[in-house]
Amino acid sequence: MSIVGTPDPQDPDDSVVQPGAGDAGWLTEKQLDEARRHLPMVYVEALPVRIDDAGRVVQVGLLLRVSDTDSMTRTIVSGRVRFGESVRDALARHLENDIGPIAFPQLPLSIVPQAVGEYFPVPTNASDLFDGRQHAVSLAFVVPVTGTCQPRTDALELTWLSPAELRSPRVQADLEGNRGVLIERLLAAVGA
Amino acid sequence: MSIVGTPDPQDPDDSVVQPGAGDAGWLTEKQLDEARRHLPMVYVEALPVRIDDAGRVVQVGLLLRVSDTDSMTRTIVSGRVRFGESVRDALARHLENDIGPIAFPQLPLSIVPQAVGEYFPVPTNASDLFDGRQHAVSLAFVVPVTGTCQPRTDALELTWLSPAELRSPRVQADLEGNRGVLIERLLAAVGA
Amino acid sequence: MSIVGTPDPQDPDDSVVQPGAGDAGWLTEKQLDEARRHLPMVYVEALPVRIDDAGRVVQVGLLLRVSDTDSMTRTIVSGRVRFGESVRDALARHLENDIGPIAFPQLPLSIVPQAVGEYFPVPTNASDLFDGRQHAVSLAFVVPVTGTCQPRTDALELTWLSPAELRSPRVQADLEGNRGVLIERLLAAVGA
Amino acid sequence: MSIVGTPDPQDPDDSVVQPGAGDAGWLTEKQLDEARRHLPMVYVEALPVRIDDAGRVVQVGLLLRVSDTDSMTRTIVSGRVRFGESVRDALARHLENDIGPIAFPQLPLSIVPQAVGEYFPVPTNASDLFDGRQHAVSLAFVVPVTGTCQPRTDALELTWLSPAELRSPRVQADLEGNRGVLIERLLAAVGA
Repeated sequence: MSIVGTPDPQDPDDSVVQPGAGDAGWLTEKQLDEARRHLPMVYVEALPVRIDDAGRVVQVGLLLRVSDTDSMTRTIVSGRVRFGESVRDALARHLENDIGPIAFPQLPLSIVPQAVGEYFPVPTNASDLFDGRQHAVSLAFVVPVTGTCQPRTDALELTWLSPAELRSPRVQADLEGNRGVLIERLLAAVGA
Repeated sequence: MSIVGTPDPQDPDDSVVQPGAGDAGWLTEKQLDEARRHLPMVYVEALPVRIDDAGRVVQVGLLLRVSDTDSMTRTIVSGRVRFGESVRDALARHLENDIGPIAFPQLPLSIVPQAVGEYFPVPTNASDLFDGRQHAVSLAFVVPVTGTCQPRTDALELTWLSPAELRSPRVQADLEGNRGVLIERLLAAVGA
Repeated sequence: MSIVGTPDPQDPDDSVVQPGAGDAGWLTEKQLDEARRHLPMVYVEALPVRIDDAGRVVQVGLLLRVSDTDSMTRTIVSGRVRFGESVRDALARHLENDIGPIAFPQLPLSIVPQAVGEYFPVPTNASDLFDGRQHAVSLAFVVPVTGTCQPRTDALELTWLSPAELRSPRVQADLEGNRGVLIERLLAAVGA
Repeated sequence: MSIVGTPDPQDPDDSVVQPGAGDAGWLTEKQLDEARRHLPMVYVEALPVRIDDAGRVVQVGLLLRVSDTDSMTRTIVSGRVRFGESVRDALARHLENDIGPIAFPQLPLSIVPQAVGEYFPVPTNASDLFDGRQHAVSLAFVVPVTGTCQPRTDALELTWLSPAELRSPRVQADLEGNRGVLIERLLAAVGA
């Protein structure tokens, strides 16, 4: 089992001190780092997909990133739910951060996720997923997008693959750690 | 418990002899009536909804129909899956039949339904739903529509209600039999 | 894509004339064969599993059968829903038929299935599954069993495999056609 | 909308300093209070139910508690997921805390919940639920129990009600805040 760097290695929202941190409920970067060692974090994750007229998933979007160790990895949309933020708002925010403002994602009808990811800071029998930085519980969704995806900041590009291409060993090897397990559960949930 | 007339009292597709019936897998009206007394029918049902930008259900669409006994009843999109027809195609066909060609429904990502309806020809403890005409098992979905709904043929109009209005005793009394139970399960599945 | 013989090649309940057939809603074998060429059949399917104390799936049960062509195939619990029979009752009946009366299955809390199988009599783009004998729509469930499984009639034995063993190419090749696709969706639905 | 005191007003596990707090990942009571004002907490919730042989929910278990303001309130099993603890383990721990060691709960096959509760410290349009003490995201499950329930510590008793009794205005008024909304979603998810 390889290592999942983190679900959101360079989340721009976490790397700066929030306005009014401390007062308004936001944490400074240092406080957040401290909290990550003591409390499970609430995350949302989204697998962008293209669908046909009948609603079937035909393509899956993976983000290409340069990891901390300068290797190329593929991942999905992922990020933390802030204090006071709803699951829907967090999902919308991270989708916009990761695939841009004109992707036109169809947000899920229900906040009951299609898969739940449990990331532990050390490998464990309780989950296939881990994340050296923190314990995170993520609500993961399949999200159809109809617009144009423009990855921002830390992601180099978004690549569209068929479900069959996604399952090829070459792509699986590029996926951050066991993230492929979570993606497989998401695809299975929609019959793709 | 009042009586559910039928999920599709005047389905135009069932009331005519299909081209090539017998040869191509279609049944005549008489054969279909006979079959309804011996085999459970596969149905699809759809609750049309309007959603906001965040994906939350804000309005629910109910069809107004004149029943066989000349009373006004409210119902949802509903119809039989034909021989050789996929669940997705049946859903698309009945949506077009019931709310018109420019409703632009968002078909579900998965054919795993949000609720399952069991309609029995006689009341039973096994289900809250029944249908004097047949035993039907329906796969029921919440379906967002973004276009204009134009009910056809036998439905007089489609009325948009808030979830709260839908739950009012007056509207519940107009719903075909215990169809309100199924609608409640569909709304609960999307947290509305 | 190989051929799925049928979800229930030798269902003992279908191969005899029902008592009072015609009167009580049952069909004779010949009438049922005729109906299978004209109407989609309602099916239930169940993947028997062993779980640990925490509810995790640790083993999956596959039935070993001799197919019509004398080859050995593996399959899951599967069978038709009869006229007037509830989904729960059909599930309980086919579980008892296929794995015996002392398997003590935990029937699902909800009749909303964990996966839906669409079997068509000819291969189609609409589904990965097909069944030369009929068009069937199956509600498929993961069913924990705590007792002893005693396969009956046409199944030679029930074999317990870990999810990893199940995914081995050797076992996948023994599965009736693309039934492995459905099993994968069921396992993904429970995170196994 | 009335106020949800907290999902776990007197969680015994939170009200004492954990062994090795700070070192081993646990927080002191004061640190936890501080964290609750800055980060969403991960919660699990469970609705204990009695089921019949066919898997249908026949009774629902509600805990009777004396709230901080000395009024009697009804609630369900609820509690925080600790750092490093899996969703399954947290669920098992809070079930044992709240309904005792011989309730023999059937833990869910999947950690994908049947409902998700979003509790905010101030009322908001984003959710029907709130909790003056914190922002919590809860994974909520329907959990059949087959043994004897012995509520501990702060709960006076566990009362079994039919789904119809649960929906009576008298019982709904006793439920902590809008917890009834979450229970309704859980019951709808299992068709009860």
